[in-house]
Order: sequence, then structure tokens, then C-alpha cells
Amino acid sequence: MSKVNSIKVIPLGGLDEIGKNITAFEYNNEIIVVDCGAAFPDTDMYGVDLIIPDISYLLTNSKKVKGIFLTHGHEDHIGALPYILKQLNVPIYGTSLTIGLVKAKLIEHDMLNDCTLNIVEDGEIVDIGKIKVEFIRATHSIAGACSLAIHTPLGIILHTGDFKIDYTPIDGRIMDLQRIGELGKEGILLLMADSTNVERKGHTISEKSIGETFMRIFNNVKGRIIVATFASNIHRMQQIIDASVNYGRKIVFSGRSMERISEVAKDLGYLHIPDGFTVSLDDIDKYENNKITIITTGSQGEPMAALARIAFSTHRKIKVEKNDMYIISASPIPGNGKMVSKVINELFKQGANVIYEDLEDVHVSGHAYREELKLIHTLAREKYFVPVHGEYRHLKHHKDLAKSLGIDGNNIFILQTGDVFKITEDGAKKEQRIRTGNVYVDGIGVGDVGNIVLRDRRNLAQDGMITIVVAIETDSHEIMAGPDIITRGFVYAKESEELIQEIKDISSEQVESCLNKNIYEWYVIKANIKQSVERLIYEKTKRRPSIFPVIMEI
Amino acid sequence: MSKVNSIKVIPLGGLDEIGKNITAFEYNNEIIVVDCGAAFPDTDMYGVDLIIPDISYLLTNSKKVKGIFLTHGHEDHIGALPYILKQLNVPIYGTSLTIGLVKAKLIEHDMLNDCTLNIVEDGEIVDIGKIKVEFIRATHSIAGACSLAIHTPLGIILHTGDFKIDYTPIDGRIMDLQRIGELGKEGILLLMADSTNVERKGHTISEKSIGETFMRIFNNVKGRIIVATFASNIHRMQQIIDASVNYGRKIVFSGRSMERISEVAKDLGYLHIPDGFTVSLDDIDKYENNKITIITTGSQGEPMAALARIAFSTHRKIKVEKNDMYIISASPIPGNGKMVSKVINELFKQGANVIYEDLEDVHVSGHAYREELKLIHTLAREKYFVPVHGEYRHLKHHKDLAKSLGIDGNNIFILQTGDVFKITEDGAKKEQRIRTGNVYVDGIGVGDVGNIVLRDRRNLAQDGMITIVVAIETDSHEIMAGPDIITRGFVYAKESEELIQEIKDISSEQVESCLNKNIYEWYVIKANIKQSVERLIYEKTKRRPSIFPVIMEI
Repeated sequence: MSKVNSIKVIPLGGLDEIGKNITAFEYNNEIIVVDCGAAFPDTDMYGVDLIIPDISYLLTNSKKVKGIFLTHGHEDHIGALPYILKQLNVPIYGTSLTIGLVKAKLIEHDMLNDCTLNIVEDGEIVDIGKIKVEFIRATHSIAGACSLAIHTPLGIILHTGDFKIDYTPIDGRIMDLQRIGELGKEGILLLMADSTNVERKGHTISEKSIGETFMRIFNNVKGRIIVATFASNIHRMQQIIDASVNYGRKIVFSGRSMERISEVAKDLGYLHIPDGFTVSLDDIDKYENNKITIITTGSQGEPMAALARIAFSTHRKIKVEKNDMYIISASPIPGNGKMVSKVINELFKQGANVIYEDLEDVHVSGHAYREELKLIHTLAREKYFVPVHGEYRHLKHHKDLAKSLGIDGNNIFILQTGDVFKITEDGAKKEQRIRTGNVYVDGIGVGDVGNIVLRDRRNLAQDGMITIVVAIETDSHEIMAGPDIITRGFVYAKESEELIQEIKDISSEQVESCLNKNIYEWYVIKANIKQSVERLIYEKTKRRPSIFPVIMEI
Repeated sequence: MSKVNSIKVIPLGGLDEIGKNITAFEYNNEIIVVDCGAAFPDTDMYGVDLIIPDISYLLTNSKKVKGIFLTHGHEDHIGALPYILKQLNVPIYGTSLTIGLVKAKLIEHDMLNDCTLNIVEDGEIVDIGKIKVEFIRATHSIAGACSLAIHTPLGIILHTGDFKIDYTPIDGRIMDLQRIGELGKEGILLLMADSTNVERKGHTISEKSIGETFMRIFNNVKGRIIVATFASNIHRMQQIIDASVNYGRKIVFSGRSMERISEVAKDLGYLHIPDGFTVSLDDIDKYENNKITIITTGSQGEPMAALARIAFSTHRKIKVEKNDMYIISASPIPGNGKMVSKVINELFKQGANVIYEDLEDVHVSGHAYREELKLIHTLAREKYFVPVHGEYRHLKHHKDLAKSLGIDGNNIFILQTGDVFKITEDGAKKEQRIRTGNVYVDGIGVGDVGNIVLRDRRNLAQDGMITIVVAIETDSHEIMAGPDIITRGFVYAKESEELIQEIKDISSEQVESCLNKNIYEWYVIKANIKQSVERLIYEKTKRRPSIFPVIMEI
């Protein structure tokens, strides 16, 4: 019996969630992985620094995995690499900027020498066996972005990666729509396309328009100009530089990732600064204020980033001055709006001027709007469609959009992380799910904080904790010391002495009552203490602190 | 020497912050208070249910306080009343809907009989002595909203309250712009005006336009219609009802505040439902799906509100059905976007249809845009101006707006909560600050959770806690038991046995080393344990759990 050839598409992250993009493509004995991103924790994932995907499936099939192919260098597409490569060391492929950013990351983790990095030019095809991966130039809010055409014996899969269609990109390197058209003519089996902005009507504005806004704003500024933006947005950086050079301003980079990425981008020829226009932060005082532009991190209001430190006067070098013009050239990512607003308020309070998205067009999106998505579908004329990059609402609307363009609704599949989507010559379907999920990074630890630890942290956060310690003599079963009460995050102990005394009393009573009844199982005594203290506290305060009874056997 | 007459304006909350609106106006021996709002906690104020203002100043001057005058019935203007009235029981004044909502609140707190509530018609003047307070009809996203003209011997203070200018309000009761013009002609000493939307160009859209959208959407729905909106937005409710009646749909109210407020509004004649069109949630099954509209709470995605409970299948009565049409008729308040998105995703996943602000015009703002603000300044032609309601960025932009309309910049004062702003015949200035601030409500407790308790909660949340208990014999100074380790929210203890053992060992060492050196001060021993365990853990995990050493004296 001959084996049926099939392609499996397995999102290991990034579907029906934001960030952590990683998808496996499997053809018989070959697996390639597209992207390897991290996600940032929700506010109630206390103490978690980063979320990376669970790649159990890849580890189980590690012999098959031929490489990881990166569409571009954003954190949600490359951020998990240092952690994943420790578990599964396979070759990495990407354009020179993408690989440059990965390199910087691997150096930080002191693991560059153990990894195989391959630079691919757009237009090139990487041949790894039955599967061949073609890099197709795309436009996005980072330079060096690509869509991927994955050529398989069953047909072509086109994965757009994150993209927008910018007809006038800063580097002149427009998206290779011709190639997509050509592949479409040839026949695209499966399209996977960015859904982030499917709810937005019309067409994104070109990055170039921001440059015109900068020129106009810069023209009237008498003091320093401080622009906060995403460190990875090299094109934005270039436009800030161009406007600065035009007005004779020197450029200062501030913030660790801004310094690092601008360095990488300059070295690789993505960023162009005329000689003599770069100034180090330490030399900033040698120049007049109206001859300085500072490009800084912190556009999301992050409390530890440079912009917030400037605003709240904790920056080691930069203090707010009256004639400063701050430009926040970014949109707040959902959830960050309040932090950004705090920084804006503080800058205004100190007398500076601040321009942000609500006031001027100082930011454009990097993700295609509806009309751009329509274009891609029209060029691709795919047989099957899987919307990617977005929450369920976006995937659902992208499905509706594709249907409105004539794609058969039965050929459109909304997948979730962990689904196995299988295409054979006979058709396509969702199969069984495989194990996936969130792995939490907290400090050095990877995966040692899980849902139970997070639940405990949430409980502790809610109403604090009370530890009740009693020492009991093993033989005589007498209380030797205590109960002692340690409490944090519940009430001010000093102002609640009466309540603390009641907790002591009720704990004593419980212990003695148990001992009198010859109950010597510590866990029973502890359960009794816990229950009665919980009841007392809830009655008196309507709160539920975490209660930890401890019995010391003497 | 004759005493100089002065008016003091003292914001006790609500300036340079969102919510918690309360302002004192003092003329010699009379104080009136405008509004008495609560604020909602930031996400890092763990366990806090509500924030109310610190009214120390009013308590110190309690004999002078003649009453609290309410502009309208939103939580950020009336929410602190039950707590404040317990400290300072003075008469309350407001329009009938506002007082109706206050009443419901006081009944919940079982204190209605102890309070004096006065219903004032718009147009009426309350005479409390030298100060007279005139209620002027305004339009806002709640019915019964008023601006207040505070007549004093030194001149008129016009406080707009929250407002927008709606020329075609649902109840036909347009804002009394004529009266504001008349007062302006007479001479307005001080204007205090809503700054919330000063960053938005143009003019708000009339509430009425939403009704047209509802009519259009309702026309095509085959199943149930479920609209989530703010319970206090009576006009929105009325429009949902009107569209439902038009299409022969019965109306069901779902969610505690929706049921309560619709009841109050019906009783007071603010809400009109034809006989036989109200159906209780328990009778919903008696009607065809296409004959039902449910008006529900939860438009902010709040996990415990009705809409989220419907979406996540925990609602006692309503399950999502395929042909359901959900309409979220509200904007997410900053910080709530992610929660709303979760609910939308879940509803889509279950096959329902969902319409929200990104897709259709199903919400309008209740706060004046720039052109409306210009109108108010032009009618008022105030001498002094204090922008209110907004963060600093909004106050600052409102100041700039007023200047652009010809108000002297020296006569515009940006105040902060706690500032004393004093006007005499000779001029106006900011004086010394008085004590104000946040009082946290947590469970029953009011004010017993402060910044230290919150800091402890944040520390506990970040990396959990480790308690280390040792029992020491008092006379012999020998370790009798322990160290025992209790940990929560740090790591899985079972998977980290080695680390826990190291913590035990290092704690033992510290205790013994102290005892060997004849150090018997427990606080010294505890400090040593804490420090060495902290160091160990940070080295091994890069985390900083809270560490609590306990020594039991036997």
C-alpha cells in the first residue's frame, strides 16, 4: 500500500493569541519551522518576564526538523530563539538584518558559537530536500521583512508573515507583488496571511508620510528634539535621522535596544547616517540644544525605558528642559495606554512640549488594512486559506473577507495553536490536536513557574498572607510556643492589634481543642486553624488572605 | 481692619487623575461641595475595590459644610457618597435621577434613613446663605445632568460638570446654553470646564445617531439581540428599547446594575417602555428568539458582569446561540481593551455575531470635543478659567485652547488635587496645599490598606514568598526544630527540592554561626538568614521572593 503524501501545518503558537508566532510545516520526513517568537505576559501573570512556546511536538520529532525560517526580526517572531535553540539546535535562516538581530540576542545569551545562522537574500530559495523555502521581499515596520513561499511536492504554501503594502518604502525596496502574482498564476495551494488589521477599512498610509510630518514639526523646534519609537523600526529611525540632518541636528541614541539595533542596522547597511552626525550620550553637552535630536526607547511608556526615566528624572544623563520637544512616534499597544499617558502628563508638567498620535500623524501601522488584504488574495488566488496573526475576531473577519472575494468557505480554516491542519491530494482537514502552550520565563527559570505558582501569586497579591506558627512538644503534645503571627499585605499589623490577637486566640483554641481530643495529625490541626482563621477574617474584613499554618514539632 | 472676602476653590480629587471628582467651594463661613466620586483602582493596586477621596479638610471644617451638590449620577461623581456621608453627614442636592441613583446606593449600604436627599429641578436655585447654587440643564451620557452656577458675593462660578452639546438629545431636553449666555453677559468670574476630550477635533455626534444605527442593524437580525452598554446611559437604553419595540421585540434587562438603574429610571419617568414589552429573564424561553432583546451589563468585558458570563457559559440563564447578535455599545475605557477583546473572541468562537465600535457607529462620547468647548468659553467669557476633569495633558491643552480664544493666560490656572485656589477682589492665586489623597476600600475596610500594604502585595505578587521557621531553646540556645520552609508563588516546591534543601542548609548555618558567636538577638539572626537566603536565591534564579524568617522561642 502506497503511503499518502501529506502536508501538515501545525501552529505551535500565535493563533488566537497575540505574539509567540511559530508554525511547523511537515512533509513526510521533513519539518521546517517558520518564526520562533516570544509573547509578553498579561498583567495578571505576576513576575513572568516572557512567554515562549511549548515545542514538545518538535522535540518528539527532532530528527525531522531541518531549520527555522524567520520572516522578520520582531520579538514576537524571533524572541524565543535563545530558549528554543537550547532545546533544539537547528539552522536558522533569515535576511541579513533579521540574522543580525538574532546574533545580538545570541551573544547576550552567550550562545552564538553553538548556533548556525544563515543569511538569505530576498528572492533566494533555500533547498532543504523535498521542501524548498523561497524568501519574497515584503514591507513591514521593520526592514528586511519577507513573505515565504514554501514549495512542496503537493503545491506551494505562501506565508505572508507580517506585512503591509507600502508603494513608497523608505529603502525603495517594494514588496515583490509581481512574484506573488507569478506564484498565484502557477497555483498556490495554501495562503496564510496576516489578519491583524482586517477590521480596518481602506489602505495603510506609507511610512514616507511620517517623514513629511517630522520635517514640518522639526522646522519649528527651538530646543532639543526627543523622539521615542520602536527600536526595531529602522525606517522610522532613518526618517528621524534625515529630518535631523536636514536641520543640522546631531543624533544621539538612547536606550539599550535603541543603541544595539541602530548599531546592527548601520553595520549591515540598513541605516545611513552621514559622518559626524552621531554623538554619544556623554558628549551631548558639547552641543547647543537646537542641534540635538535624541532617538530613544520607551514609546510604550515602559517604566524602566529611557523615555520614562527622562520624564521622571531618573535618567542618568538627560533632564527635561523647557524647550524640549518630545515626539512619541508609536501607538500604544493595547494595555499600555495608561503608562504612555503617565509619561506624557509628566513631560507636560515639567514644561516640555509633547506630540503624540492623538495630535499629529507621527505613526503608521505596519500591518495591511482590508484593501491590501484583498490585493494579496487576488494575486494569490489560493485554493485553501488559513488566516494567521491575530485574535479569533481577526481570523473570523479575515475568513469573511476571503469569502467575499470568492474563496470557497469550505476551504477556509480557522486554526488554533495546537491544531494539526493536514492537506493531501484529496482535500484538507483539521486533525487531532497536539500538545502546545505557554512556557513562562521568570528570571533564569524557564518553565519552573506554572499555573499553580501563578495562582498562588495572584492569591497573595489579592489580600496578602498570614502565617501562623505553633511549636508543639512531640511526646507531651503540649504547645511549647506560639501561635506567632506573621502577616504581609493584609492590614497594618500595628493598627490591627486586636484582630491579630483574635487570630492568635482562635488558633490556640483550635490547637488545644484538637490536642484535648487526642488528635495528633498535624494536617488536621492545620486544616482546623486555617478554616477558623479564614472564617474570622472574612467576617471581620470581607477579605481572603492566604493563610499558612505551620506546626513545629519539638 | 476689615476682613478680605475671598472664594477658595479646593479640588479634593479629580484633577490630574481620572475619577474621584470632588471639589470644595468656600466663601468665608460657608463651604459647598460639588460631586463626591469614587475612582477605580489601577491594576497594580492589588485587592483594592474602590478609591475614595481623603476629606480631612472637610472634616476639619465640618461646621462650615452646607451640602454636597451633584452634577450627575455617574460613579466618578457619586460613588464615594456612602463612605463620605458616614464621616460627614450633610444634605445632598441633585436632579431626580441623580438622587434616585444615590438613594439606591444608600439603600444597599443600609443608611438611607440617616441621610438628607433633596431633589432639585434644573433651573432651580438652592439658597444656602451667601452662596447660592443654580442647576443648569446640561447634556451628557446620563440623563439628568447639570452644570452648576455657584453665585457668590464675589461673582459667579460656572462649573460645567461632565457635558457634551447635543442639539438633538433623546429626551428633547437640550443644554440650557441660553442661560449660560445670559450669565456670561452678567459676568462669570470663574469657569471650570470638562477637559476630557479637548484633544479631539470637531464636535461630538448626537446620541440620536446611534438610534439610527440600531434601527438598521436590528432590521437584519434573525435571532436574539443582546446589547451591552453602560447601565447609567438611560438614553442609550431608550434607543435600544425604541428599536426593539419597532421590530416587535420584548425587552429583558440583565445584570444587577442594569436591572436596578432601569427600575429607577422607569419609576422617575426617564425611561419609557410600552406596557407588555418588559419580560423577566426567567420568562425568556416563552418567546421566539427573534422577539427578544436583552440589554445587559459588561460592556467593558468585566469578568463578573453578565456579558462575560454569557460568553464564557457561566450565566445562569443565557447561553450563546448561533443566530445571536451581540452589540457592544460602548468604548473600552483605557486598560479594559484586552478584556473586551476576550469576550468578543469568545462570542465569535461560539458562532454568534458581534458588532462593536471598530465595525459600526454603536457608541458616541458624552464629553465635549474642541468645538463644543470653544462654544462654552465664548458664551461664558469668563474672567478666570480652571480646566477640570482630565489628566494633566488634557488640562494643559484646555488651557492652550482657552488662550487661543482670548482668555488671558495669567488668568488660567491648572490645579492639582489638594491645591487651594483663592480669588479675592484683587486677583487670584494658588495658595498652600491641603491634605488630600487616596483612601482605599478593600472589603469592609476603608483606609486600613495603605501604600505599605500595597507594596507588600506587589512584592508577594512578583516572586512569591518563603517563610523560614526555626525553634530555639531559650536557655541552652540550641536549635530545637527546623528550619522549616513554607513557600508559595515562588517555584514548585516538589520540582525544586534541591533548592529548598539549600535554603534550609544555609539558614541552619546562619543560625548556628550566630549562636556559636553568642549572638542571641533574634533580629540579628533573622537579618542574617534573610540576607543569605536572598543572595542564594537571586544567584540561582534571578528572582527576589519575599523572605520571612521566624524564630520561635521555646
